[in-house]
Amino acid sequence: MPLDRGAVLLPDGRTRFSVWAPAPRHLELQLRRRGSVETVALERDQSAVARVELEDAGPGTEYWYRLDGERDRADPVSRSLAGGVHGVSRVVDPGAFRWTDDGWQGLAMPDLILYELHVGTFTNAGTFEGVIGRLPYLVDLGVTALEIMPIAEFPGRRNWGYDGVALYAPHSDYGGPEGLRRLVDAAHRAGLAVLLDVVYNHLGPEGNYLREFGPYFSDRYRTAWGEGFNLDGPDSDEVRRYLVDNAVYWIDEFHLDGLRLDAADRIVDLSPVHLAEEIGAAVHRRAEALGRRTLVIAEIDSNDPRWVRPREAGGFGLDAHWSDDFHHAVHVALTGERGGYYADFGGVGPVARVLGRRYVHDGGYSPYRRRRHGHSAEDLPGDRFVVSVQNHDQTGNRAGGERLATLVEPAGVRLAAAILVLAPFVPLLFMGEEYAECSPFLYFVSHGDPGLIDAVREGRRRGFAEFGWQGEVSDPGAEATFTASRPRWERADQPAQAAVLALYRDLLRLRRAVPLLRPGAAEPVVRHDEREEWVVMRLSGKDQVLDAVFNFATDSREVPGLASPADLLLDTDDPRYGGQGRVRHDERSHTLPARTAALLRSRP
Amino acid sequence: MPLDRGAVLLPDGRTRFSVWAPAPRHLELQLRRRGSVETVALERDQSAVARVELEDAGPGTEYWYRLDGERDRADPVSRSLAGGVHGVSRVVDPGAFRWTDDGWQGLAMPDLILYELHVGTFTNAGTFEGVIGRLPYLVDLGVTALEIMPIAEFPGRRNWGYDGVALYAPHSDYGGPEGLRRLVDAAHRAGLAVLLDVVYNHLGPEGNYLREFGPYFSDRYRTAWGEGFNLDGPDSDEVRRYLVDNAVYWIDEFHLDGLRLDAADRIVDLSPVHLAEEIGAAVHRRAEALGRRTLVIAEIDSNDPRWVRPREAGGFGLDAHWSDDFHHAVHVALTGERGGYYADFGGVGPVARVLGRRYVHDGGYSPYRRRRHGHSAEDLPGDRFVVSVQNHDQTGNRAGGERLATLVEPAGVRLAAAILVLAPFVPLLFMGEEYAECSPFLYFVSHGDPGLIDAVREGRRRGFAEFGWQGEVSDPGAEATFTASRPRWERADQPAQAAVLALYRDLLRLRRAVPLLRPGAAEPVVRHDEREEWVVMRLSGKDQVLDAVFNFATDSREVPGLASPADLLLDTDDPRYGGQGRVRHDERSHTLPARTAALLRSRP
Repeated sequence: MPLDRGAVLLPDGRTRFSVWAPAPRHLELQLRRRGSVETVALERDQSAVARVELEDAGPGTEYWYRLDGERDRADPVSRSLAGGVHGVSRVVDPGAFRWTDDGWQGLAMPDLILYELHVGTFTNAGTFEGVIGRLPYLVDLGVTALEIMPIAEFPGRRNWGYDGVALYAPHSDYGGPEGLRRLVDAAHRAGLAVLLDVVYNHLGPEGNYLREFGPYFSDRYRTAWGEGFNLDGPDSDEVRRYLVDNAVYWIDEFHLDGLRLDAADRIVDLSPVHLAEEIGAAVHRRAEALGRRTLVIAEIDSNDPRWVRPREAGGFGLDAHWSDDFHHAVHVALTGERGGYYADFGGVGPVARVLGRRYVHDGGYSPYRRRRHGHSAEDLPGDRFVVSVQNHDQTGNRAGGERLATLVEPAGVRLAAAILVLAPFVPLLFMGEEYAECSPFLYFVSHGDPGLIDAVREGRRRGFAEFGWQGEVSDPGAEATFTASRPRWERADQPAQAAVLALYRDLLRLRRAVPLLRPGAAEPVVRHDEREEWVVMRLSGKDQVLDAVFNFATDSREVPGLASPADLLLDTDDPRYGGQGRVRHDERSHTLPARTAALLRSRP
Repeated sequence: MPLDRGAVLLPDGRTRFSVWAPAPRHLELQLRRRGSVETVALERDQSAVARVELEDAGPGTEYWYRLDGERDRADPVSRSLAGGVHGVSRVVDPGAFRWTDDGWQGLAMPDLILYELHVGTFTNAGTFEGVIGRLPYLVDLGVTALEIMPIAEFPGRRNWGYDGVALYAPHSDYGGPEGLRRLVDAAHRAGLAVLLDVVYNHLGPEGNYLREFGPYFSDRYRTAWGEGFNLDGPDSDEVRRYLVDNAVYWIDEFHLDGLRLDAADRIVDLSPVHLAEEIGAAVHRRAEALGRRTLVIAEIDSNDPRWVRPREAGGFGLDAHWSDDFHHAVHVALTGERGGYYADFGGVGPVARVLGRRYVHDGGYSPYRRRRHGHSAEDLPGDRFVVSVQNHDQTGNRAGGERLATLVEPAGVRLAAAILVLAPFVPLLFMGEEYAECSPFLYFVSHGDPGLIDAVREGRRRGFAEFGWQGEVSDPGAEATFTASRPRWERADQPAQAAVLALYRDLLRLRRAVPLLRPGAAEPVVRHDEREEWVVMRLSGKDQVLDAVFNFATDSREVPGLASPADLLLDTDDPRYGGQGRVRHDERSHTLPARTAALLRSRP
């Protein structure tokens, strides 16, 4: 069903403008056409929706709403903005693009290998077009899907995207709607799916004019980022629709293969059907009607399997959720960091636990949270969980934005790569991780309001103190902070980095080639030795058994109990990957040097 | 498992005092014994729990905690208070009572016929003992369970109970723990179950010292009554335990047959297991261990079947929930009132809808709420829903506290009685309803703080304005408001009232005698005529068919399509019930006078 809000081109050539606006006393539509600004008086129906159909308002026409005769505001459902978040709306013809992705049907959850990227820093161009230029590299790397950080129009030129305020308008500087369509189309032709990170838990602090149109926000529940959307109070139907329509819009008009719902468990909605459940159902329904598969993945912090249980079982029916315990367990085992939420982890026990039980915290006490945390999810297959060893949050929310390659020695980087790709979950790589990028990924904004930038900086400084960070924090508002966060692709050709890239390539190839490594294919049986610091995960199939062995110790370890005879499919100490070839593997014993992973295959 | 907080008598005669108290810097226990006050210094473990075992502190010993050397506060887990909510705790021996209810096993949901009463006004004595005196009357009436309005110690002598602050202490003026045990024991011997209304969504505004002990409350979510409990923030485990223990305590130490969780859907808890679900599971587990059946019923306003779906289906696993749509549909059809939330109802359509579909609002738009409301519950049996035509809220939250008998003529009262008892749900009668009590049930408090009473009065006046009430509002703080709210039992002997009482008795007898009237026994098939204002509900069994016919019109109606031949089991125009015997029922036609119900039985 096409959008019934915003500016819609009708078959007869006219354009229908439709807006929900209960708040202003007077409402007019203004358009710039034939060289001048015209004003159209609007009537609203009893649902506070105004609709008008006009001729000569085709693609490119600039328009806006005048509220109470004095404030000019862009359409809440702008498909494109001219002049940024404080600017005006532009009519877009979503049907004008010539799609060439016929036959593309999307990917199933177990086939996802995600590659998270930030359009603004991914290339020097900082555009969707720039990303297109690197698609062959990503195909060669072996990932299967891009996950694009939020692209809704945000204030200024530099932003992670979580300050977006015009949820329907792909950021102009990235290339706008046309640019995004070209990227998705090109990705599909290259065999890559595209997922988009969308933010429905709050709107950015600058350029948010929604509350001038109606009661979009609620003060009933506090979130870390200010008022959340009004999802269960009076007049919330249109607010929910605004968000559900938005989710479906990305599928419909941009052929996206999935959405990542940012901080979805911070969306407080006490309705019988949570917004996330409604979005999941609407997206799945629409995708099915289009003959495609579209995934809805929630970022949650609550270790609550309800989000990804089927609706028939009382769950929200989403396809997967981001699961941080894996990251934290691996990160602490490698770095020994214990500040902030890392206090709840330590040693290889949590690594073993997360591999076997999905979560480290599945109902037990969390000292960091000072309460019980999580719920058992052992009934769910591994493809419900998206895991990473680096992502925009875990890297960029560090005071120094440090990449893993600057925190641990090369063997640790290789071990992290192996456990990420061999774990029975859906892996996500963060741009540059695949060649051990060591440039930071820092937090950057470019708000128009300098006071806002100061507030952002101060807030982040306080947050970092919790992790024990004493030093300087780079200026989020500085252009240099932004440019410093770009991957330096030229580094990937240097020997040390090229070796890591080769490891990721081989690991991903192995993952795609060996059916037992597909998440959900086998229930992992995990054992570990806390003192010796190794973990073994066994995956048993009908005709083969895989032992993935991870030595987190800083010395070599002999690991008992592995199957023999067995083929060594891959080890991270291989000289091809920058190692020294010290893995010893024969019928009697298996020795792994410090911080090494190996994958063994035997017959059952 | 016995309580591990509060004062617990040990087998060796000593008393263990145990309290969770992270807030104060210094903590001491003080006791009054051997004629003087003794002070015991307390150490707290790493969970901030202090425990001490003392001799010579048996039942009756008064004790309290001294916080930071200056504030004397009763134990949060006081089983009994001396001196009211600002007073001190008293050691109680829960094992001293001689129970005589061996073999009592509780009731199943479909067998419940609830009778809601307020201990303070139910009799002139205003005590549990007073209620015992009326048990024979209630047995004779034919109800199967008492539902007691909240009895946790509240400020002053007069209160509905929702201002309770000492959740473990049965109100002293009602008779304290001993009195409650005597009532439950006597009820069980009389064959009546006892359910208790418990309030976990807030604490009263006076005498709440819990926050001086620890972070019991949260400011993250706003409720209509101030801060709710801290159920998902730091240190919430002990807060949840405080409430879950409390629920189990009523089952364990008072043999209660069920709990009604007041305004349960206002309890904001974003944990993987909602507090209500945790309470339901704990109570059911404990009851099972005791070989009894204990019901957990939630008051919710959200028409959300998740609350009463089984846990295996992703529900909260509660036994039933209060369902207001039935009341509102019947009330508006009888009174024509349309103020406030009654705006969403009108005519007999909603009556038919609620009989057939459980809810009037199961996902459609509610003009009063200005949003979609509710969710389909048609998959659930009728015994999941507790309904009423009067209850403490619907009567007492009117500006005049008017009983139905003062709002509609006698035929309407009889029609209401019939639809309540014949509806395929679990009926709840409000004390005095059974003989058409016409005394009001008003809102009353007796806070120590006069400013608080003024605030209560002003708040209620504003609320009533929404319903169009212009007149005076009785003074909640006046003793006369309290005494005016007592049922006048002597009226039940007057002819008009005695006739209504006879109707209720016969209806309840019929309900217990006819298996098809048991909720869940048959799926009701409902038809209605909006213009003619009648509703017919058909229940079909293997060997009989029941037609319950309800004429809401103020004229007589011929109702088509009824089974013939059929026996007239009961009609509300029967002279025995105060009617005029005008129901015409033969093979060709069925005529019901104005505002009359009839129950017909035929062969399938």
